[in-house]
Amino acid sequence: MAIEVFWGSGSPFAWRVLLALEYKRLPYTSHLLQFSKQEHKSHEMLALNPRGRVPVLKDGDYVCFESLAILYYLDLKYPQPPLFGRTPEEAGTIMRVICEYENYIQPYLTTIAGAVFAGTPDLAADEITAAMHAVASEARTIEGRLSKSDWIVGNSCSAVDMVIFPGIQLLKRALEKPQAAALSSRFMPVEVNYPALGRWLTRMAALPGYERTYPPHWRG
Amino acid sequence: MAIEVFWGSGSPFAWRVLLALEYKRLPYTSHLLQFSKQEHKSHEMLALNPRGRVPVLKDGDYVCFESLAILYYLDLKYPQPPLFGRTPEEAGTIMRVICEYENYIQPYLTTIAGAVFAGTPDLAADEITAAMHAVASEARTIEGRLSKSDWIVGNSCSAVDMVIFPGIQLLKRALEKPQAAALSSRFMPVEVNYPALGRWLTRMAALPGYERTYPPHWRG
Repeated sequence: MAIEVFWGSGSPFAWRVLLALEYKRLPYTSHLLQFSKQEHKSHEMLALNPRGRVPVLKDGDYVCFESLAILYYLDLKYPQPPLFGRTPEEAGTIMRVICEYENYIQPYLTTIAGAVFAGTPDLAADEITAAMHAVASEARTIEGRLSKSDWIVGNSCSAVDMVIFPGIQLLKRALEKPQAAALSSRFMPVEVNYPALGRWLTRMAALPGYERTYPPHWRG
Repeated sequence: MAIEVFWGSGSPFAWRVLLALEYKRLPYTSHLLQFSKQEHKSHEMLALNPRGRVPVLKDGDYVCFESLAILYYLDLKYPQPPLFGRTPEEAGTIMRVICEYENYIQPYLTTIAGAVFAGTPDLAADEITAAMHAVASEARTIEGRLSKSDWIVGNSCSAVDMVIFPGIQLLKRALEKPQAAALSSRFMPVEVNYPALGRWLTRMAALPGYERTYPPHWRG
């Protein structure tokens, strides 16, 4: 009963699941779908997830989607090494910081990255500036955590690192575009403005199996 | 080491936590904060949660916030009866439906309830109509689940029931306002348009301790 994962290059949500599978050293069959060909909306994929979204995990006959639910399932099914800490208190804090990220950061990242990649002409629009301001402020909080510890919560890499890392990578990729130069000054270069965050990005990229999780179309 | 919960009347997020505490029959000290007096932004509350949001749970020295994280913590710390099912597969599905609710329903509920309670004059605005359309469609999916089972996932009440129930109650309360009459026709009366959902609302309200969780300012 092999694990199968259906994903798309550049989806931060799919990236989380690949990071978790590699971290747990679970063998899996990778199905890289082409968004440009709408493969995530195929008849077969809609049968697995009627919303036509990735990632989707199939473990034998069991199907799960929504990245956080997949991380949670994997951690219960294959407990070692843990993704959600070793005590109820640590688990609660990991989930709390994940929820904070999902509720108060991710929507702004989506606004910024969406505007840059869509070629929105007015990147100085109020909504985008406000989003960048919010993200910079939240990044300062994460910088504070990472200046005291190698990982966002506790002493090990956990689900919260896997949730946040792909989002930061997507933001960096958006802000590296020439048209985003003015917008990016508050954040970039990450290594200068947020040195602990920059070191954590390097640490994450050194995890075993990381190269297999990197979005193929981002290379070169 | 008693459990303390800080909450506000009518917050669907706080309501989730009260339902979970009652379901697990955990003794707790209730701190009902007055939003109108900004008690959730007091110095003491900001020391517990710098975002000044409720619910906040304090269990001895441990502090947790973000409602889903609190449910998760409570379930690990006090496992019986379980909130997240009895197998990894059931747990994954419970979390998946929670994530779907959070990502694809809750934002629309916030739009609708926010507009009604703020006295927005144009409740026929495109954004609100679209939100109502989305909610009605998602409610149809939940109706399908509840027409086959007493609870949203599996054979027992779980965290997903506790997450969704307060949101539906808030929506109902908004749509019962006279000014929302036109908007509400697609959804109300719930018992007619969504009979299985209506029976589930009654079932939830019959849970032990439910009366203690009901928003005080909604009475009478």
